[in-house]
Amino acid sequence: MVEGQLVCSNCSSNVPFHHEDGICSCGGAFLVVYDLERIQRVWSKEEIARRSATMWRYKELLPIQRENDIVSLGEGWTPVLRFPEWEKKLSLGRLWVKREEQNPTGSFKARGFSVAVSLLKSRGIRRAAVPSNGNAASALAAYAARAGMEAFVFVPMDCPGMIVEEALRYGAETCRVDGLIHDAGKLIEDGKQKEGWFNVGTAKEPGRVEGKKTMGLELAEQLGWKVPHVIVYPTGGGSGLIGIWKALCELKELGMIEGDLPRFVSVQETGCTPVVDAMHSGAERLVPYGESTTASPIGVRVPNPPAGDLILSILRETGGTAVAVTREEIRLAQRAMGLQGISASPEGAATWAGLIRLRESGDVQAGERVLLFNTAHALKYLPWPAPASVPVARNYQEFAVNRNKG
Amino acid sequence: MVEGQLVCSNCSSNVPFHHEDGICSCGGAFLVVYDLERIQRVWSKEEIARRSATMWRYKELLPIQRENDIVSLGEGWTPVLRFPEWEKKLSLGRLWVKREEQNPTGSFKARGFSVAVSLLKSRGIRRAAVPSNGNAASALAAYAARAGMEAFVFVPMDCPGMIVEEALRYGAETCRVDGLIHDAGKLIEDGKQKEGWFNVGTAKEPGRVEGKKTMGLELAEQLGWKVPHVIVYPTGGGSGLIGIWKALCELKELGMIEGDLPRFVSVQETGCTPVVDAMHSGAERLVPYGESTTASPIGVRVPNPPAGDLILSILRETGGTAVAVTREEIRLAQRAMGLQGISASPEGAATWAGLIRLRESGDVQAGERVLLFNTAHALKYLPWPAPASVPVARNYQEFAVNRNKG
Ligand SMILES: [Zn+2]
Ligand SMILES: [Zn+2]
Repeated sequence: MVEGQLVCSNCSSNVPFHHEDGICSCGGAFLVVYDLERIQRVWSKEEIARRSATMWRYKELLPIQRENDIVSLGEGWTPVLRFPEWEKKLSLGRLWVKREEQNPTGSFKARGFSVAVSLLKSRGIRRAAVPSNGNAASALAAYAARAGMEAFVFVPMDCPGMIVEEALRYGAETCRVDGLIHDAGKLIEDGKQKEGWFNVGTAKEPGRVEGKKTMGLELAEQLGWKVPHVIVYPTGGGSGLIGIWKALCELKELGMIEGDLPRFVSVQETGCTPVVDAMHSGAERLVPYGESTTASPIGVRVPNPPAGDLILSILRETGGTAVAVTREEIRLAQRAMGLQGISASPEGAATWAGLIRLRESGDVQAGERVLLFNTAHALKYLPWPAPASVPVARNYQEFAVNRNKG
Repeated sequence: MVEGQLVCSNCSSNVPFHHEDGICSCGGAFLVVYDLERIQRVWSKEEIARRSATMWRYKELLPIQRENDIVSLGEGWTPVLRFPEWEKKLSLGRLWVKREEQNPTGSFKARGFSVAVSLLKSRGIRRAAVPSNGNAASALAAYAARAGMEAFVFVPMDCPGMIVEEALRYGAETCRVDGLIHDAGKLIEDGKQKEGWFNVGTAKEPGRVEGKKTMGLELAEQLGWKVPHVIVYPTGGGSGLIGIWKALCELKELGMIEGDLPRFVSVQETGCTPVVDAMHSGAERLVPYGESTTASPIGVRVPNPPAGDLILSILRETGGTAVAVTREEIRLAQRAMGLQGISASPEGAATWAGLIRLRESGDVQAGERVLLFNTAHALKYLPWPAPASVPVARNYQEFAVNRNKG
């Protein structure tokens, strides 16, 4: 891209491209604007088809100016598989799963951090921090390692221990936070000035949404520039959903795809369903979920997604919906996907479970073409204990004290 | 391919293509022969470049006749990364790692089983069994699930528990064998008639070598049809090494690459080094290692690789060598790769550790271009306990008895 602009998804105000503060003063999310007319002169389906099989094949639609700044571990261009047996079972025209677990660090989070860390590199930033329910922690750790940066990752106590293990192996300074993901976020905000951390949390900077956008660009190209009727996506912070929607809007404006956008469906787990509740009550704005009651954490447990209103408007404008699934439905879906040869994360299995509900409710109809996402490897979620050496803190003060002791 | 021939790598006798018995009566390994003149008329670098980013882009060089028989989970075309920091540290012209852990089931074994299971499908075979130190078990399980076949996997007691877990999730009937991999192999041979198992163990059929061959085809294309000076590969059963070498021989005959083949280097772990010992003693034939003393198993612990003589001749004819590394060297290499953002299996880290030795010994010289393989995800090897429900047997009789009880 050329140095461009940001637009607020709520009040539509335009501001020059900047790297910090992903949220407008009105509360809307800033999104990167590209000079699509210029890109249209360079792009064609044939030109793109000739490019390398990574998400960086869409470089003109990513906010990095110089190729030298790209921090890559081989992310993107993940396979899309069909499941003919289940197409029959559910009377669907097509059932696809995009295998995001084949990314570096075994999850879709690689995409967002490839772009976010590239942006940090382009600006000479050397210390990054992130609050995460899991996969974002190990993804930041890996990409920071690749770029020779320092990473600080903060996860809730019940973050899968294997992901904590992974972050340590990539050399990240890792801390477990006695609280939920927003407590981890507050810790970073409280400490960032003193520590010189750049907070790459959800909606804190433009890179992660843009990176996740490549899931949408890829699915369109991989399906022959013809989009499915329905996209089911597990929704926590929501930046994946926003990214995929933004991708398809851009492709439409570029003339690369035609017709209606897919209907977007958010899946959440019973016990933390702010998006589902808002959709069902008809609320215009998303109400924070308060104390989450979900027994153990999966990536979709975000009681108050920062760009919640944008998520609602995407679901509504595309004619989509939101659906809650139980832990038990997720377990059964994981089993079903395993028996198809897929190592499904709980979040990925939630999209499969959501689809079964959508067929029962009629929200997805016979003959439709549906695409699900498997966001990460199943094995990362086994109840492996986090190494005892990882410090625990309730807030920034405790983190700083523990650190000086160590 | 068209229905072709097999050639014995030892006595050079040609036989019609068949699916069973990978070893000639002389003890040599049967390899698939292709009509390269015919392929040369279809192939060009431009034609291949246009194809989809999976290992099946090389379909003419794979032994499957009908596209409908292909059993795919999205394998191959894994990233090749450079490590500029370590190129400097080791004074190398290039240092690449091919990230095989980004395959389905998180390991390079996916390639072999995609082809092997496709061959089974093409022949209407419904029950497959494999002896494995780990990753082959979960790969067969996944591909059999994808094809709707029954899988039976037999692993040593000390196979990583996470891989056992994975095989179960893909629905494979899974058994731990009180012994080493060849005991597991014997169990299958003893039971195969009664059970109707097709044994897809190393060198039992032509598909697995052909599938692994795609690592070689890909590395050549990904490096711009210019091969590295040295390829370092962890050597257990040896079919990966054989496959890569075969790929480069075929590409040379097709005129796709020019000049000398890379020098092939086998890496083994101290405690089970039949290939290293034979290379260093100058023995013409490989001597089985006897009781392996390696403390805990990694995939390279194969005391008596079935195609050992072919491995030796590849190492010698290409001017390569073999090198043993210790558990501690592997641990340090895993750490080093982690700090570069790579989730390295012990076998993958062994290639990194081997390279460090080769630079010290002068077997790899300053300025050379070297390619390593990271064969699987690090996390699959964490000491996770195998589920207690998995039965244990010493031989086929015990397996059969336990099964009838269950
Ligand atoms: Zn605004
Ligand atoms: Zn022979």
